[in-house]
Amino acid sequence: MTASFTTSSLAVAVLAMLTAGAACAAAAKPEKELPPKPSMADVVKASKPGDWRPLDPENTMVMDLPTGRVIIELAPAFAPNTAANIRALVREKYFDDLFIIRSQDGFVVQWGDPDEENPKPFKAAKTIKAEFTVPAKSVGSFTRLKDGDVYAPQVGHVNGFPAARDPASGQAWLVHCPAMIGVARDTGADSGNGSQLYVVTGHAPRHLDRNITVVGRVVHGMPLLSSQPRGTGAAGFYEKPEQRMPLKLVRMMADMPEAERSRFEVMRTDSATYQAVVEAQRNRGGPWTKVAAGKIDLCNAPIPVREQK
Amino acid sequence: MTASFTTSSLAVAVLAMLTAGAACAAAAKPEKELPPKPSMADVVKASKPGDWRPLDPENTMVMDLPTGRVIIELAPAFAPNTAANIRALVREKYFDDLFIIRSQDGFVVQWGDPDEENPKPFKAAKTIKAEFTVPAKSVGSFTRLKDGDVYAPQVGHVNGFPAARDPASGQAWLVHCPAMIGVARDTGADSGNGSQLYVVTGHAPRHLDRNITVVGRVVHGMPLLSSQPRGTGAAGFYEKPEQRMPLKLVRMMADMPEAERSRFEVMRTDSATYQAVVEAQRNRGGPWTKVAAGKIDLCNAPIPVREQK
Repeated sequence: MTASFTTSSLAVAVLAMLTAGAACAAAAKPEKELPPKPSMADVVKASKPGDWRPLDPENTMVMDLPTGRVIIELAPAFAPNTAANIRALVREKYFDDLFIIRSQDGFVVQWGDPDEENPKPFKAAKTIKAEFTVPAKSVGSFTRLKDGDVYAPQVGHVNGFPAARDPASGQAWLVHCPAMIGVARDTGADSGNGSQLYVVTGHAPRHLDRNITVVGRVVHGMPLLSSQPRGTGAAGFYEKPEQRMPLKLVRMMADMPEAERSRFEVMRTDSATYQAVVEAQRNRGGPWTKVAAGKIDLCNAPIPVREQK
Repeated sequence: MTASFTTSSLAVAVLAMLTAGAACAAAAKPEKELPPKPSMADVVKASKPGDWRPLDPENTMVMDLPTGRVIIELAPAFAPNTAANIRALVREKYFDDLFIIRSQDGFVVQWGDPDEENPKPFKAAKTIKAEFTVPAKSVGSFTRLKDGDVYAPQVGHVNGFPAARDPASGQAWLVHCPAMIGVARDTGADSGNGSQLYVVTGHAPRHLDRNITVVGRVVHGMPLLSSQPRGTGAAGFYEKPEQRMPLKLVRMMADMPEAERSRFEVMRTDSATYQAVVEAQRNRGGPWTKVAAGKIDLCNAPIPVREQK
């Protein structure tokens, strides 16, 4: 208090109350420290071998960019025909020497053939019946997330993939969380064949759910894609050839010699340990965190991946 | 059908039904085309001048990086003391020649002083009472989003910022949507003073809501921040000086000569036109979109910005 304030004891008392009131108005309530709790990293560290599953080499697409390796786990339970066509494309070396063709800020990075006039030919199917949703019964165990969702009646995880389900229609689908891979298409629902793929890099664009065949997830190498300079053309497409990073070499893990393979494991999302991971994010402990969220949205639930070196 | 299939008419009929059944099992229902509707771009194009408000130069922080200009709108309604301290820091040229110090994939990019041993001195306040939430009554008109939210009882927009509100506590707060600016702090709730700021670049980390003073939004220049190479240190901090992009020049728009200012406008989120923008995203028309989401989450509601050249 400066000399300009009145100094009578009543005035001082009033001023102290007013000042305290102003401070309290700024902070919602007195600061209570949250007790510490295991972090997600703690839970992962304490996990058992059985909490993890290795990637299936038949479902693992390996893209060796000039800057490093990107590893994609395909989800044939949700997109069997599209996954099969992608394997076929990879096996006829279609993706080799194609390019990252698009990087749209806060949205997606996309790769494939930039040449619409003289497209690279391929033997795999040119159209694939849309696999936007599948019968929920066909995808296996759905570990439901109790927190609810703005977009879908039910959300949760299926074998390491973020998914949604609608009991009314009996359908399930993969959700456009960051790192999820979608199959680019034209207006025709069946026009996506897997020859152009994109990965979600920004806030989950959930309005694309059920409009796109979602076929997998990047489990390693996201920074190599998400930090790509943004394209200057419409929708972030690159306009100049020199802007497009080549894909170099794209293979199914199953076709790679042992010595060149990477060994990754994904946490089993139907495990008790995974529930603990989600809970560690849902209700963080202190002292840094002051208010536990008490809720978690599907795309904020991390799906741990680790490399066995 | 190939020659290996039986050719009796019954067998052919059964095969056709089975094939059709398999196709139908893959697609949830027959494909109905959604009628076309105005896109968000259409709505923005049809907007009136009164649907937009210019940035207030006193609330506009301009960072001129070597790669281009980043423009941040401060939100003093939600963080009056922190916004004032940031203005003070800018005005004493604290940020000039500091650096982008962190880029964590799918999370944040952060800037400030990388030197913890010999920090750059400043006159502005070193601690600021936490402004994690404020009385809802004090923030002005809250345009509620009807779609609900996983984390907060109510969400919506306040003067171009994504916000949440809890009627039970009477508090409101800014939400960690992409492009929102948070005030980095240590464990102490009051330890954030605005000298280190971060922008959300990935899926909204909503668990940080009410734990951080959120002080503004990047309205222009996000790609310059979000495409920053990811830091190799813990939490994406850069380990080597040469990795850190300098900030160069940071000023309040109010202190810039007219000729150097940018002129940006933000759509008024309490306008009918903004409701139309949100609806265009909530329920997209066809023919590309096959299923309208029918819902939208707060951080998927774009807040249009335009430059008046």
